[in-house]
Amino acid sequence: MLTKDLLKGLLSGNRMSLSKSITLIESANLDHRKQATELLSELSPSPSSIRLGICGAPGAGKSTLIETLGLKFISHGMKPAVLAMDPSSVQFGGSILGDKTRMQELSAHLDAYVRPSPTKGVLGGVTSACSENIILCENAGYNPIIIETVGLGQSETTVDEVTDLILLVANPAGGDFLQGIKKGIMEVVDLVVVNKAEPPFREKAEMTKFELEQAFKMSVRRYDNWVPPVLLTSAKNKEGIEELVNEILNAKEKLKYEIFEKRKAQMILQTHRMMEDLLRAKLKEMKSSGDYNHILADLNQMKIIPRTAATQMLSLLAKD
Amino acid sequence: MLTKDLLKGLLSGNRMSLSKSITLIESANLDHRKQATELLSELSPSPSSIRLGICGAPGAGKSTLIETLGLKFISHGMKPAVLAMDPSSVQFGGSILGDKTRMQELSAHLDAYVRPSPTKGVLGGVTSACSENIILCENAGYNPIIIETVGLGQSETTVDEVTDLILLVANPAGGDFLQGIKKGIMEVVDLVVVNKAEPPFREKAEMTKFELEQAFKMSVRRYDNWVPPVLLTSAKNKEGIEELVNEILNAKEKLKYEIFEKRKAQMILQTHRMMEDLLRAKLKEMKSSGDYNHILADLNQMKIIPRTAATQMLSLLAKD
Repeated sequence: MLTKDLLKGLLSGNRMSLSKSITLIESANLDHRKQATELLSELSPSPSSIRLGICGAPGAGKSTLIETLGLKFISHGMKPAVLAMDPSSVQFGGSILGDKTRMQELSAHLDAYVRPSPTKGVLGGVTSACSENIILCENAGYNPIIIETVGLGQSETTVDEVTDLILLVANPAGGDFLQGIKKGIMEVVDLVVVNKAEPPFREKAEMTKFELEQAFKMSVRRYDNWVPPVLLTSAKNKEGIEELVNEILNAKEKLKYEIFEKRKAQMILQTHRMMEDLLRAKLKEMKSSGDYNHILADLNQMKIIPRTAATQMLSLLAKD
Repeated sequence: MLTKDLLKGLLSGNRMSLSKSITLIESANLDHRKQATELLSELSPSPSSIRLGICGAPGAGKSTLIETLGLKFISHGMKPAVLAMDPSSVQFGGSILGDKTRMQELSAHLDAYVRPSPTKGVLGGVTSACSENIILCENAGYNPIIIETVGLGQSETTVDEVTDLILLVANPAGGDFLQGIKKGIMEVVDLVVVNKAEPPFREKAEMTKFELEQAFKMSVRRYDNWVPPVLLTSAKNKEGIEELVNEILNAKEKLKYEIFEKRKAQMILQTHRMMEDLLRAKLKEMKSSGDYNHILADLNQMKIIPRTAATQMLSLLAKD
């Protein structure tokens, strides 16, 4: 498909165009990569969108919560997109979840976009690819963009590199939640829900909520001016979801400045990662060139010394 | 001084020209660096030279041995050069030994060149600078080139990156020498002298020699076809030095092929290090340019996305 047509489809909110664009970004094929660059250069990120990262241990009910939350956003007149990100798949991307239809009700809804498989990273790694997918979704009219971490060794710090806000989904654990949690996670969390706050876990969920609130009060948190709210939800029973939507909208509003600064830092980090990747690709390309082998041969025959060889290689790298 | 004149002086064996050339290589000044490149591009390494690295713990009598050995090489009609290398001074080079006159008798000899201060690394680090200094010495007619490791944390693997042969200078330690030695050193050693093999250490020196020979027999060594000879010397009494010279000449002859291959690998390693350094310098230069800051501003104002910024930065890097 021509970039022009893809762009037109994307901007008019066509899902197929969006899916095709995401596929382009995650492709290692050089032509696809070129087209992705062409397409992306026409797009701008949306400053007003909400980019929400969801993390929490497997079994906390993240997928169910996201589906319920997405439907609630729709009832507010919004169009949620859900992308999954597998921080552990830095190299090869693929995921066993790929073929399963996730979040069936939300997926089927005309006002939602659910990407079935996790983001695979090519240029600049998985975080850069995910950021670009977010921009695509924003340009297709979606908001909020919800990023779910999947896979083993889920890293909240990775999802924090691409989102405005991090929502932690906690299990009802009585007063022992913090003991079981990874060190450092509390400092990147902006909102928490204790999910499954339904019988028979209701009491344990309340204890967990209390424990978390105490921790945040003792300033185990990211921003001085923001104490992460802790909510009780039952995704299964669709309870507490309206409150959660309101807290998310409130957080985006209250943390406007912090998010603005965060996004700037994210973009600079991604730019440097991408430039390193491009440079690495250029070096690799150079190393398979005839000119490079010619320099190596001269070096081996001691016709030139390393300094001369290095200078020649560098000018080879600059050549294009 | 003009490069042409420096080159002329160097090739005619003028010591002052040699010292000036070495100073150029160790200078961080951009003009000096340029002149060093110009000068070096006219020179070739000598395939027949002997590059001998000397290592051993402080107090083993390395300097005294080198002086005695150097004078013995002169009596063979050879012209030794002695360079010191401080592997620990990777960053800043300077050495407290700098102002002391080392090896007074050898230094004063017309057929020897003793560089008073240790090699400082600039482009490509201390090993590359040392290799280039070796090439300068070779082109000024010196052979062998003796590299002494000085300074704290002396690393035999570093000196092994620039020399053909490694001579280990051991203290007479009875049968306990191997216990006190750094792990891995025996695998890079080509010759050993147990120095101070004079009263009252003679017996201990012989035990150390026996211990080392046993270790080499059990194939703790670099090449299958070379069992490092272990010699007894008394540098103070000038004993065992003639034998040492013969063993060095013999090793260079017997390990001709291995040394040829080793030098090729050394040159490729140095080339890659230097190219990385040159690239790093180019990146630094780019980051202080107006064009770079313009890209960053566009990024900050969200006029462009990271992929576009990275592509623009890369073409900035290639520009010259």
